[in-house]
Amino acid sequence: MALLDGIADRRGEFLLFALTPPRATSAGPRAQEVADVTLARLQPLGLDGLILYDIADEADRNPDERPFPFLPTLDPAAFLAEYLAAWNAPAIVYRAVGKYGPDELRRWFGEQDPARVLTVLVGAASRDSPARTSLRDAQALRQEANPALLAGGVAIPERHGMRGDEHQRLLAKQDAGSRFFVTQVVYDVNAAKNLVSDYHYACAERGVPAVPIVFTFSVCGSMRTLELLRWLGVDVPRWIENDLRHATDTLEASCRLSLAAATDLIAFCRGLGVPFGINVESVSIRRVEIEMAVRLAEQVGAQLRR
Amino acid sequence: MALLDGIADRRGEFLLFALTPPRATSAGPRAQEVADVTLARLQPLGLDGLILYDIADEADRNPDERPFPFLPTLDPAAFLAEYLAAWNAPAIVYRAVGKYGPDELRRWFGEQDPARVLTVLVGAASRDSPARTSLRDAQALRQEANPALLAGGVAIPERHGMRGDEHQRLLAKQDAGSRFFVTQVVYDVNAAKNLVSDYHYACAERGVPAVPIVFTFSVCGSMRTLELLRWLGVDVPRWIENDLRHATDTLEASCRLSLAAATDLIAFCRGLGVPFGINVESVSIRRVEIEMAVRLAEQVGAQLRR
Repeated sequence: MALLDGIADRRGEFLLFALTPPRATSAGPRAQEVADVTLARLQPLGLDGLILYDIADEADRNPDERPFPFLPTLDPAAFLAEYLAAWNAPAIVYRAVGKYGPDELRRWFGEQDPARVLTVLVGAASRDSPARTSLRDAQALRQEANPALLAGGVAIPERHGMRGDEHQRLLAKQDAGSRFFVTQVVYDVNAAKNLVSDYHYACAERGVPAVPIVFTFSVCGSMRTLELLRWLGVDVPRWIENDLRHATDTLEASCRLSLAAATDLIAFCRGLGVPFGINVESVSIRRVEIEMAVRLAEQVGAQLRR
Repeated sequence: MALLDGIADRRGEFLLFALTPPRATSAGPRAQEVADVTLARLQPLGLDGLILYDIADEADRNPDERPFPFLPTLDPAAFLAEYLAAWNAPAIVYRAVGKYGPDELRRWFGEQDPARVLTVLVGAASRDSPARTSLRDAQALRQEANPALLAGGVAIPERHGMRGDEHQRLLAKQDAGSRFFVTQVVYDVNAAKNLVSDYHYACAERGVPAVPIVFTFSVCGSMRTLELLRWLGVDVPRWIENDLRHATDTLEASCRLSLAAATDLIAFCRGLGVPFGINVESVSIRRVEIEMAVRLAEQVGAQLRR
C-alpha cells in the first residue's frame, strides 16, 4: 500500500489519477461501461491511488457564465462502491462537505475501510454558500466516526498569491487532522513554489513535520478547456496561454508544458525536503484528452521514486 | 564585433557585463585603479560588451526610504572616455535622458564612434520627474546627430505584470529606433517569459522582426542587497527570498538560482525564436559579490552560442 505508507511516513513520491464520476443520468450499465473502460486505460500506469472528485456547482463562487454547462454527476462514493469494485488500490474520495448533513457524513466516514478509502474534505466554495456541514465540523466528525480514515485537504497556490496566508491555512487544516494536501491544477509553477516554500519554512519554525502535498496537473486540448480551468480559478500564465493558442497541436503542447512544470516542482520539493505526490486530472471528457492525460501520468510517474 | 553583428542580424546570443561607475568623489587615480582592477577581472570572460549605467537618484519613483544612501557616481560616458581606454570591445553607455539638456545629448551622440559605443536611452523614472529631455526627443536627437549609433531601450517585465502592455511599449520604442532592449535584474522568470511571449506574438502579428532582448541577472549576497533590488522595482518571488534567507551561503545560492533562471529563459527564447543576450550586473560593490557575479557570467556565458 504505497499510498498509505507514503502518507504515514511522509515520504510522498506517489502517483495518482483523478476522475470526475460520470453524469448522474448515466447510472446503470452506461456508468459501469465508463468505469470499466477507465480502469483498463489506467491499468498500465500502476497508480498508487485514484482520486474521485465530488462536483459541486460552483456558480456561487464565480458570477461569470460557466464555459461548460453544469451537469450533476454521480456521487463519487457511490461511483466507487457500485462501479469500481475491480479497482484494487486505494481511492481518495472527495467530500464537498457543505452538500451533506452531519449524520450522512458521519455514517459515510464510519462505513469506510481505511485500508481502501481515503478522503479529501472540501469546504464551501464561498463564504456565502449555504453549507449543511462546515469544514471544521466535518473534520471533527471524521475523527470521531473513523479516526483511522486518512483525510486530506485542498491547497490552493493561487489563493496564496492573493492573500499570502495559504500556508497558514494548511497548518490549521493539519492541526485539524489533514494528513496530506491536494492542489487544484497547477499551471503557474512559481505560485506553487511560493506556497511550498512558505509552508516548508513555517513547518520548520513550528517544529511540525511537512505532510505530502499532491500537485495536480492536467492537459488542455483547446482554448475552451483553458477557459474552464480559468473559470475554476486556475492561474494560467500569459506565456503558457500564448504557447497553447499558437501551438499546431494544443493538446501535445499542454502535455509538454505540464511535464516541464512537474519536473521543475519535483526537483524543488526534493531540494527542500517537502514530501509530494503527483496527481493527473483529466479535465475534459474527450477521448484524445483522456489518452493524453494518461500519457502525462506515465511520463511524470517515470520520474517518481516509487 | 560580435555584439554589433548580433544586434544587426538580430541573432543575439551575446554576453555583457554591467558596471556602475565609481563614485564621483573618486575621480582621478582611484577611479583609474577601479577601472584597471575591473577590466583585469573581466578579461577572462571574453565579453561581447560592457554596459555602463547612468545612475539617477530614483527617490522620486519610490517614496520608501532607500536601503542604501544615494551617492552620485561618475558620468558613465566620462568614465568610459577617461578611464576605460584599455577596454577593446564595444561599450553600451546608458543615458538617463532627463538629466541632460538637448544640446548636451546631441553633442554626445555626435561624438561617439558607432563601432565602439552603443547607448541605451532611459526615460524619467516617474511621470512627475522633471525631465530636461524627454525620451521621445532623445530618440529623435540620436537619429539626427548620429544615425549609425545603435540605441536600445529598457524592458521591464514587472511593469508587464502590472499593466500588461510592456510589449506594446517595446514595439513603440522599436518604431522610434530601438535596436535592442535590456531588462532590469530578473528574478521572476515567469514575468520575463510573459513579456517575451507577448512581444514575440505581437511582432509576428505586425510582421515586424523581434530585436534582441538582453536579460540581466545578478547575484545577491545579503538580505540588504535583496532589499535594494526590491526598492529598485525588481520582483523577487517569495520562494527565492525564502531560499536566500535560509541558505547557509546566500551568495552562492543566489548564483545557483540566477543560473537556473537564465538557463530556463535561454531555452524559452530559443524555442520561440526571439533573439536574446545575457547581461550580468554586479549590484553590490563588495569584492566577494563582484567575484561571484563574474562566476555567474562565466557559467551563463558557457551556454551561449557565441
